[in-house]
Amino acid sequence: MLRGRVVVTCDTARMTTQPGPPRETSGGHPTSSAAAGTGTRLDPWLSAYAERTHGMRASEIRALFAVANRPEVVSLAGGMPFLEGLPLDDLAELAARVVATRGLQALQYGSGQGDETLREQILDVMRLEGIDAHPDDVVVTTGSQQALDLVTRIFVDPGDVVVAEAPSYVGALGVFRAYQADVVHVPIDADGLDPDALESTLASLAAAGRTVKLLYTVPNFHNPAGVSLSAERRPRVLAIAQRYGVLVVEDNPYGLLGFDSEPRAAIRSLDADGVVYLGSFSKTFAPGYRVGWVVAPHAVREKLVLASESAILCPSNASQLAISTYLSTADWRGQIKVYREQYRERRDAMVSALAEHLPEASWNVPDGGFYTWVRLPQGLDAKDMLPRAVTARVAYVPGTAFYFDGSGADHMRLSFCYPTPERIREGVRRLAGVVAGERELVELFGTNAGGASDSVQSPGPDVA
Amino acid sequence: MLRGRVVVTCDTARMTTQPGPPRETSGGHPTSSAAAGTGTRLDPWLSAYAERTHGMRASEIRALFAVANRPEVVSLAGGMPFLEGLPLDDLAELAARVVATRGLQALQYGSGQGDETLREQILDVMRLEGIDAHPDDVVVTTGSQQALDLVTRIFVDPGDVVVAEAPSYVGALGVFRAYQADVVHVPIDADGLDPDALESTLASLAAAGRTVKLLYTVPNFHNPAGVSLSAERRPRVLAIAQRYGVLVVEDNPYGLLGFDSEPRAAIRSLDADGVVYLGSFSKTFAPGYRVGWVVAPHAVREKLVLASESAILCPSNASQLAISTYLSTADWRGQIKVYREQYRERRDAMVSALAEHLPEASWNVPDGGFYTWVRLPQGLDAKDMLPRAVTARVAYVPGTAFYFDGSGADHMRLSFCYPTPERIREGVRRLAGVVAGERELVELFGTNAGGASDSVQSPGPDVA
Repeated sequence: MLRGRVVVTCDTARMTTQPGPPRETSGGHPTSSAAAGTGTRLDPWLSAYAERTHGMRASEIRALFAVANRPEVVSLAGGMPFLEGLPLDDLAELAARVVATRGLQALQYGSGQGDETLREQILDVMRLEGIDAHPDDVVVTTGSQQALDLVTRIFVDPGDVVVAEAPSYVGALGVFRAYQADVVHVPIDADGLDPDALESTLASLAAAGRTVKLLYTVPNFHNPAGVSLSAERRPRVLAIAQRYGVLVVEDNPYGLLGFDSEPRAAIRSLDADGVVYLGSFSKTFAPGYRVGWVVAPHAVREKLVLASESAILCPSNASQLAISTYLSTADWRGQIKVYREQYRERRDAMVSALAEHLPEASWNVPDGGFYTWVRLPQGLDAKDMLPRAVTARVAYVPGTAFYFDGSGADHMRLSFCYPTPERIREGVRRLAGVVAGERELVELFGTNAGGASDSVQSPGPDVA
Repeated sequence: MLRGRVVVTCDTARMTTQPGPPRETSGGHPTSSAAAGTGTRLDPWLSAYAERTHGMRASEIRALFAVANRPEVVSLAGGMPFLEGLPLDDLAELAARVVATRGLQALQYGSGQGDETLREQILDVMRLEGIDAHPDDVVVTTGSQQALDLVTRIFVDPGDVVVAEAPSYVGALGVFRAYQADVVHVPIDADGLDPDALESTLASLAAAGRTVKLLYTVPNFHNPAGVSLSAERRPRVLAIAQRYGVLVVEDNPYGLLGFDSEPRAAIRSLDADGVVYLGSFSKTFAPGYRVGWVVAPHAVREKLVLASESAILCPSNASQLAISTYLSTADWRGQIKVYREQYRERRDAMVSALAEHLPEASWNVPDGGFYTWVRLPQGLDAKDMLPRAVTARVAYVPGTAFYFDGSGADHMRLSFCYPTPERIREGVRRLAGVVAGERELVELFGTNAGGASDSVQSPGPDVA
């Protein structure tokens, strides 16, 4: 039925379900008056929501991504790993073995902190990045997203500041917003977070009497910017955070996915007391088990376990034993090499297609990870352009998703992780056509590129 | 090495890691002075924690349960289902099939709301309790504990009131405390929550200007009290909640595990707009996959999805597809019958052993679920007695765990779900010996039974 062109029909009721500023509550009693809801459906519980809930909104781009998931659309938007290289038959046999031989454990409740054997194996993984820790320091989480949630939960009061790179991972910004934090961005360049800018930002915040709780950073193959924090800057960034008493949250899902280099030493390898480290099997193995982890200083780790028990009781034993058995019986290091080759080939396809079709844009050439960060030609607005791109059967994430204040419309994130190289080239070709059309419009009518939109909104897990 | 008697050595550093009231923070800068920490280890981040974190404490009984998990101890404490009746070889084959045939989906990220096929199958499960819903109304969660966390997250501001049965599920009380709610208990009797007491409690709270957000209830085979809300009371409880504009949170993990009766109609079957319903596969199948769900009114459901994406991105596809395949290919109704028979036999063992060995106590005879709620003879304190019970190689959960203010020391929860009938009888026999010793002490020295201790603390997932 749909060929050649996608008609974008946006369900506005889904797109912004909770417009407007926080509302007054009235004694917890739900209002049923029509005036209370401005959406297309009344919500009798509108006045009963917690203060934090008023900031939870479905992203405006969410409905577009429902369309973007159609097979005829080349999605350069998602952060889904490409799993077709996994040995599914071996993994099936492994899954059977876990249930047949350790089923009474796999199917039962487990420890809130996570399986001890898996925690020991996680140490082996982290040792590749120079981290020396004890199994007691590790808490297994439902993906590293849960680790982010727990760290924020135990540290952030409403109004506290989280300092983060500009741009930052959209899923982290969503967590910080959910806990009513204020995010202050610090610029990055080709070597990652700028230490001088970090220092002056922290100094300004201290002078303004603000409470800064966390420095959130993705030091390797940054999402969305693709850059890595240089080895030289790592101790400097750490020293600045220490000087201001700010806990460093090192989020490292991509560190082992470098294309041309050995893994860099983690910030956590320099300091066990001032860094909370987040890791994940989602990109180095598979996200479907939802197994991530957090390494934290002793007392912080205790709080994280209590918070996790309150949130989910315990992580899935079935998932943990599957991962643990994979690590002990499969060639997980070899699989990471497969992934690196695969993503390097896709990265090459992406940057060569950009050079061929979009020379008027600018971008970095990431040496690992999943993402290219593209600056559009002057005057173009990536968020405004997105519906037209989806209509032209290509999707990306506009830069606005990665800034707490919704700025960043002059950028877009192009992911090269999931589509084949051929599809990546086709996607960039389509994108070039959309950009050409936008430039004509700009020449005719001007633009509002770079304008800030409302706030961080949840685009859904496809985009993360 | 250990025979006949367990020596309880409590690691006090683990038992209460965070004593004392909330502390002043000082601009987010961690203090490193020795005075800041009263525990045995210094926590350099003590002053940086969020306000909510100061209420997070490891339970004093937590360390005891580490001992109680030794094989020589009969644990009547845990809420772990007895899984040895599961057909592990069939489940192993099923697990392999999921990965071999649907591996690219099982191992990938999924939808924040949960797998659509599974959500449709969940409707079949809920239909057994008279619930008529749409797959769109369902959100799949990481166990129903996560559903509790998400519901509380979107509704409860610090200081809001949650009304709950006296006693209430310890894991729910922990969630309410984590969001800084105030829990007000309403008495129950043999027919469950007392509607008159509910009405007068809500009237008093309204008169006092308190904001009541949720009525939390476990209507079937209550944890810990073992009673069920009568069919006659269900519409009354609902009508009272509606009149006061309070959302009912119906937590129903045990509803299909009645020993002698067909499942009762859920409160949710009476009203789709005023009830949030929580379900789980943990007790009717297996907890190791961590798959539960929540059914909520449309707008509330949208908020829950956004909150869940922020908390974990998405539930595990691997777990969801395993459960979904189980529901579509295995005799899940037959397995529930197996569980019912199994738990009925254990319940019988429990109550006959109580009658034989502890006639001076009183208890209910639950007709479903996992728990007996036992009132100790006058003057005995279940919390004080616990270390001596564990020394005598039997464990239970003192009633104090199930009250927000730590009252309830005159009760204990005895679970009959996990040990064999022989072990249950042996456990009660040991318990009777401990009680006899306590009564001698009471006669000699008096007691402080029934006194309130500090607050709800996390005893860990073993106890939930």
